[in-house]
Amino acid sequence: MNILFVYAHPEPKSLNGSLKNFSVKRLEDAGHAVQVSDLYAMQWKASLDADDSTDRRPDARFDPVLDSKHAFENGRQSEDIVLEQDKLRWADALILQFPLWWFSMPAILKGWVERVYAYGFGYGVGEHSDARWGDRYGEGTLAGKRAMLIVTAGGWESHYGPRGINGPMDDVLFPIQHGILYYPGFEVLPPFVTYRTDRIDEAGFTRICGELGQRLDDLWKTAPIPFLPQNAGAYDIPALTLRPDIAPDQLGFAAHIA
Amino acid sequence: MNILFVYAHPEPKSLNGSLKNFSVKRLEDAGHAVQVSDLYAMQWKASLDADDSTDRRPDARFDPVLDSKHAFENGRQSEDIVLEQDKLRWADALILQFPLWWFSMPAILKGWVERVYAYGFGYGVGEHSDARWGDRYGEGTLAGKRAMLIVTAGGWESHYGPRGINGPMDDVLFPIQHGILYYPGFEVLPPFVTYRTDRIDEAGFTRICGELGQRLDDLWKTAPIPFLPQNAGAYDIPALTLRPDIAPDQLGFAAHIA
Repeated sequence: MNILFVYAHPEPKSLNGSLKNFSVKRLEDAGHAVQVSDLYAMQWKASLDADDSTDRRPDARFDPVLDSKHAFENGRQSEDIVLEQDKLRWADALILQFPLWWFSMPAILKGWVERVYAYGFGYGVGEHSDARWGDRYGEGTLAGKRAMLIVTAGGWESHYGPRGINGPMDDVLFPIQHGILYYPGFEVLPPFVTYRTDRIDEAGFTRICGELGQRLDDLWKTAPIPFLPQNAGAYDIPALTLRPDIAPDQLGFAAHIA
Repeated sequence: MNILFVYAHPEPKSLNGSLKNFSVKRLEDAGHAVQVSDLYAMQWKASLDADDSTDRRPDARFDPVLDSKHAFENGRQSEDIVLEQDKLRWADALILQFPLWWFSMPAILKGWVERVYAYGFGYGVGEHSDARWGDRYGEGTLAGKRAMLIVTAGGWESHYGPRGINGPMDDVLFPIQHGILYYPGFEVLPPFVTYRTDRIDEAGFTRICGELGQRLDDLWKTAPIPFLPQNAGAYDIPALTLRPDIAPDQLGFAAHIA
């Protein structure tokens, strides 16, 4: 299978760098084709702006949505954006690897999402009607592909537990797993999270690689997180609220998981 | 009072630009001193990397935490970072204004947080012991100051309701309000959120300005979100989980609000 590995850490000789190298080798040894987008090494442009179109007029008002739509439909996107979209089309699976910085992905990776997910590609896909609200949350350009996060966190696992001070890791990652990955169609596997990354010795690294290697071996066997698809009956349209009979007692992020 | 207004939208002639101009004028007319960090206009460097220290050695291994600590303690931070830290020290209140892109802040603003919140300034403050786990979540460098988000969202309010498909807005914003603002000490006011931003006509803009103006007038009167402080007894240390008698039936983000 084809795997796109998008990686965001500034130092190759870091725990993240080592886990990336381990993962790529493991996947290649298993016979997969792997492309790596090493965002820091690529000096990826993080900020979405008018320069993302090749035919911008300097005096024109820039509209992030409409300019993205125009550029995508008319072949006027920056080359760096086109290359990443092509990698996504090629891939059967996407892996995003990053350190958790301030309870989300690093800015450089957020900027990869913002710029690569053009209108017509990452969003703005499909028709809006009484029965459908676009192809999203389970449908979309990237439907049929799998995705998984590999995340390192400095804090302790208990700090991210059900009653931990940082909030449960599943909830911290929900805007990424549901809002960035499930939204354009990916099936999202449970994340691989490593905690207390300042205290990992050689034995710890070996243990982590054992667990991560197993997850990579199981990439096509692991059951995805059962997020509820938008257009299959669970949601009232256009309010996009869960129907009263779906998870009737639940509120918040967890209600959107079957 | 002194107000730092950090603003992240690429187009001055946008709804966000108009709301920023309205807000700054309203605050100045009320007698406040306002500094604006217009991140796109400043061409803010979004990606945290080794260049954030002025004395980096090109061959040295870059450690995001230790290099930040070294640069902060020894006066070796990039000038752009120092200027923003000075603005934060000067401010009595911080306002972050941004469009919600992929369920979080734009990359350029995330990069402002990552780079300005140095070790020793935004985190890594205070002692760790059996009774305390650093000065954070209610204590820290920025304690005694207030903060508020001004957010625009393209989706409908119902999409962000308690059972809305995107998740409740309070939960979507929790990693920012609790993890980025409360963490270094800010008292966090309820956010000001505008929905369906593609459909706002002149009457709608007037209505929004009326509501936003009132919120700005009430900046020192509005009750902050009652997040639970870390070191005042609600959490077991060092597990940093809520004690069994605190919100005994609650899990997740909401459990951390009194």
